Amino acid sequence: MIPLDDRGLLLGDGLFETMLALDGAIPLIEAHLDRMAGGCATLGLPALDRDAARALCVEAAPPAGRAAVRLTLTAGSGGRGLDRPDPVAPRLLATAAVSPPVQTPAALIVAAARRNEGSPASRLKTLSYLDNVLARAEAWAAGADEAVMLNNRGELACAGAANLFWIEGERVFTPALSCGVLAGITRGRLLGMITVAEVAADAARLDAADAVFLTNSLIGVRPVSRLGQRTFAPHALVTRLARDVV
Amino acid sequence: MIPLDDRGLLLGDGLFETMLALDGAIPLIEAHLDRMAGGCATLGLPALDRDAARALCVEAAPPAGRAAVRLTLTAGSGGRGLDRPDPVAPRLLATAAVSPPVQTPAALIVAAARRNEGSPASRLKTLSYLDNVLARAEAWAAGADEAVMLNNRGELACAGAANLFWIEGERVFTPALSCGVLAGITRGRLLGMITVAEVAADAARLDAADAVFLTNSLIGVRPVSRLGQRTFAPHALVTRLARDVV
Repeated sequence: MIPLDDRGLLLGDGLFETMLALDGAIPLIEAHLDRMAGGCATLGLPALDRDAARALCVEAAPPAGRAAVRLTLTAGSGGRGLDRPDPVAPRLLATAAVSPPVQTPAALIVAAARRNEGSPASRLKTLSYLDNVLARAEAWAAGADEAVMLNNRGELACAGAANLFWIEGERVFTPALSCGVLAGITRGRLLGMITVAEVAADAARLDAADAVFLTNSLIGVRPVSRLGQRTFAPHALVTRLARDVV
Repeated sequence: MIPLDDRGLLLGDGLFETMLALDGAIPLIEAHLDRMAGGCATLGLPALDRDAARALCVEAAPPAGRAAVRLTLTAGSGGRGLDRPDPVAPRLLATAAVSPPVQTPAALIVAAARRNEGSPASRLKTLSYLDNVLARAEAWAAGADEAVMLNNRGELACAGAANLFWIEGERVFTPALSCGVLAGITRGRLLGMITVAEVAADAARLDAADAVFLTNSLIGVRPVSRLGQRTFAPHALVTRLARDVV
């Protein structure tokens, strides 16, 4: 339970991470803690207590099977309206849920709800995630699995809970962080494995692509089979990446 | 206390209202409940239980003095990641804090953090309010009281926790809701009292204005004395509005 005056609850003032746990181990936990620590700095919150955060995550991870561990950091209690208290005493909590692997390709739509490229929060996993909730709800209402979010300039940004990639011929592309994109852990791993161009591009680029895929820490690499009316055949590179990136 | 799986806490999935209570009465409670009910519809949440919400607010309001009553509605517990459970069971809570009247004019800066005009949430008081927290923190760091937020097109939107108005000669202006603006209760009252043009305008319009002022349910009408280096002298119309709008 959490107190009613928590700023994460009242104002979305905080951060989270979702990590893959396999048989009690969290292989990429340090990368997730790095990202949360960076988010604390960007948001002007006190430095992350990495040891406390790590211990909570390890404790939450079930000893067997595949699970999603969620680490949540709030700006704690107090302050007056928008203004944070001085000092801020962050609150950390971790929970876990069984997370079976996703075996099916994704059907996408382009959401009406836009990504706020003009806020530093658009590059972070924050507790103010309502725009992503709305984008995903649009996808479900349209019979799709996930939503492509554009920013206010009409540029491709990301999916509701994943980074976005596409392939044109031999070349692989992903939206640049400046488009309002979370610096995904799996996105970062791919950028270290293959040559990817980080670009500002409009939605028509996806229609013209040979293949589209999504990445996040739970799904790894997930092929896209459909975007609106456009369908995509399986693509050898995406199949290989989906196998190699767990 | 609130459970750890509450979607308001985890994802900022919900709404709030901040109302003025005077000696146990909440004069504008029905207008606030109307707005929250409209927000529920926009966000795809179940219809607001107005009777339950009203009872919580009345119970929270202290019997004597001037207080801010905050009503919070979350999308409740459950669901899977971004996806809401079916059905959604919203959670309502209300708290109150002493709220002395604000007697001083406001010093403003223009924040770097932008307003997301491309999301329906930018016209609502949602639990995803981190951009506003960041804008206000910028103001405090610069020795100011409040921040003017622009949208991603560079148009004036609002302040961190207030609507924005300015005067040019005999004419009064405020940003249009389509700029990513909360439909403030006090803003709406002013639109019914005096002639106000709702416009899309850039920040330079404030520099050229004769007067600038802020409105919300707690401050009523608050004059602005400074925007960055520009200072504003007291203005007869603002003084009159500040007196008449409580």
